[in-house]
Amino acid sequence: MLTKITGGITAPQGFTAAGVHAGIKKNGQEDVGIIYSTVPAAAAAQFTTNKMAAAPVLVSRQAITQGKTRAIVINSGCANACTGDQGLTDARTMAHTTATALNLDDCEVLVASTGVIGVNLPMAKVIAGINQAAGSLSEAGHEPLLAAIMTTDTFAKACAYQFTLNGKLCKIAGIAKGAGMIHPNMATMLSFITTDAAIAPLILTQALSQAVELSFNMITVDGDTSTNDMVAVIANGEAGNAPVTTTDSQSYQEFFTALKTVCTELAQLIVRDGEGATKFLEINVTGAVSFAEAKCAAMAIAKSPLVKTAFFGQDPNWGRILCAAGYSGARSQPDKTSLVIGGLTIVVNGQGAVGFDTEKLKAVMAAKDIAVTLDLGLGTAAATVWTCDFSYEYVKINGEYTT
Amino acid sequence: MLTKITGGITAPQGFTAAGVHAGIKKNGQEDVGIIYSTVPAAAAAQFTTNKMAAAPVLVSRQAITQGKTRAIVINSGCANACTGDQGLTDARTMAHTTATALNLDDCEVLVASTGVIGVNLPMAKVIAGINQAAGSLSEAGHEPLLAAIMTTDTFAKACAYQFTLNGKLCKIAGIAKGAGMIHPNMATMLSFITTDAAIAPLILTQALSQAVELSFNMITVDGDTSTNDMVAVIANGEAGNAPVTTTDSQSYQEFFTALKTVCTELAQLIVRDGEGATKFLEINVTGAVSFAEAKCAAMAIAKSPLVKTAFFGQDPNWGRILCAAGYSGARSQPDKTSLVIGGLTIVVNGQGAVGFDTEKLKAVMAAKDIAVTLDLGLGTAAATVWTCDFSYEYVKINGEYTT
Repeated sequence: MLTKITGGITAPQGFTAAGVHAGIKKNGQEDVGIIYSTVPAAAAAQFTTNKMAAAPVLVSRQAITQGKTRAIVINSGCANACTGDQGLTDARTMAHTTATALNLDDCEVLVASTGVIGVNLPMAKVIAGINQAAGSLSEAGHEPLLAAIMTTDTFAKACAYQFTLNGKLCKIAGIAKGAGMIHPNMATMLSFITTDAAIAPLILTQALSQAVELSFNMITVDGDTSTNDMVAVIANGEAGNAPVTTTDSQSYQEFFTALKTVCTELAQLIVRDGEGATKFLEINVTGAVSFAEAKCAAMAIAKSPLVKTAFFGQDPNWGRILCAAGYSGARSQPDKTSLVIGGLTIVVNGQGAVGFDTEKLKAVMAAKDIAVTLDLGLGTAAATVWTCDFSYEYVKINGEYTT
Repeated sequence: MLTKITGGITAPQGFTAAGVHAGIKKNGQEDVGIIYSTVPAAAAAQFTTNKMAAAPVLVSRQAITQGKTRAIVINSGCANACTGDQGLTDARTMAHTTATALNLDDCEVLVASTGVIGVNLPMAKVIAGINQAAGSLSEAGHEPLLAAIMTTDTFAKACAYQFTLNGKLCKIAGIAKGAGMIHPNMATMLSFITTDAAIAPLILTQALSQAVELSFNMITVDGDTSTNDMVAVIANGEAGNAPVTTTDSQSYQEFFTALKTVCTELAQLIVRDGEGATKFLEINVTGAVSFAEAKCAAMAIAKSPLVKTAFFGQDPNWGRILCAAGYSGARSQPDKTSLVIGGLTIVVNGQGAVGFDTEKLKAVMAAKDIAVTLDLGLGTAAATVWTCDFSYEYVKINGEYTT
């Protein structure tokens, strides 16, 4: 049984963390951090598909293929993206500095960065910061680490759970950073997950891939895929369970459920802290011909500036939702389509529902958490996407960087 | 030679128009209009690809296949979209009423609507309005017609040109409506073009298709493809030129140039009047592997809320432009990519340009018209997309409909 517990990224056994102020951020807050497994571990990671992928993504993508990850070094305040050869050298230096301090091979370290694109890292400060962080690793380090991965987030995003695998109590914990409010950085998404469960590296990779598909890949704030996105999980086996070695086992299902729960919770927290967000929107598309088409329609609705501004302004302009599904690429037919917003039936088979009135919809749209269900009436596939509204604050955050 | 002339949609010979207030719009302005060719004509039209296409689109799509269009009846204030069977009946009634008043077959009339989705037309008012408009058709009717197709546009969008085909002076004129400012309707795009040139219907269809691909299909305001988009051209041959009957003729090139010029000018006017727009942005992508990839990258940049808000706020956060190209799906490599904004070189082969400074870029971004050129450095294909920025006013327009 999956139970929520307190504690951060170091809640699972055999993990320590640290966060320090190295001097990248001008506000004096933590900006360099390390997550460390005190014993050898399995690891898996997923990275941005953006072709302008940042230097740390290139370095980490190569390192993870060795399957020996024990540490993740992270900086905030600078994305080290679009920084050319110097950026690649700097990302490698971050891995090497961390590895040397912790007596690891370079390939046992993942590197992650978040912040402004196109600016080089102040490496003297970064190197000093990494050494300071490596020297202060502890279980209590999860708090300063959380601060070190934030840029403009308005709250820290973390969760931890325990569950049982083959009679052994296991723990899993995750942290994430999303889109902030004060500086107009990319909506860079970083997430790191630790677990003391024992699981084979290939099985862990598969579990992460499936969990990400149903969690992080189902959220959107503004439709911009960052150059620096990264999700990594480290499993060090300290719980002592019989290792999970196949995907068709009961224990795989238990582990996958725990991993998916952590990923989904963190993904939803990122949306709740979306730049300028005032509302949390769950977009369900049902009755689609395939999952891909259901997701396609749900994402089109979730990304539509017209839909997002309507929710911000509590404007009962529901036609925009059908319009977005109509251009999404998913198969749809007006006379098969039905729409429910916050429990209120708006459209049935393409016709306005009996008894619907605009005032009722306005009242429903005043809520902070709103579920939208669009039934395409063509098949049995469904998908759920989470997003936020589009406010004046979003424009302010992203338009007023230099003023 | 193509020369700009004054006059509206009735500038070409043999066209009349009218616009009346039928009572759909609450502000007392014109809301029903007719464009009419006094003689038989060739016609071509293109419609939205949105699967939730509005009733008038369904009716017009069928009518245009007869190739006999002589009249277009248009209403604003109600899109007649997502209105089920009643909507279809109403659109057919609009065609039939117009045809009866003008002694035409129903299939000689195209129907277009623009306004709020999901609301039925007040048909008694619409029928009376159509009859009134049909009775007041004149060359001077182009002014009230322009008003009748507007919803929330801040200025009327029209242009007219003359050119010579095989020794005969021909005229071509077009009007369009775009995204307005006061009511949060869909970014519905309607455009109607008249010409007195003689051209075979199939050749006209081909010319329109090519011209739209390079003009209307190269603009975006907010990425939402409307349920009601329509572009129609009527060519009545009154200029007396030898008809254009093949695409490999000099006269086709002359006509195509005129048509493309009108379409491009109207498309750009729509962007300049984009909801809340404060800037006009030209996004050029060069060095792509194909036109499709160049357009794909340019559209991703043009649609990115992060790019659009940066231009609004004059935030020199150029990394967002490379980021958008990176996730667009177009092939790209950071170390081959170069970027110029408003004549200022920012990035050369993935590295920050020598002498670039943020203050210079801020100054360039203060202009109202700004050209961005992203060179992918991989091929020889290029594409140009036009868009506008994303302002507080956009959020206000689309979030405050009911308040």
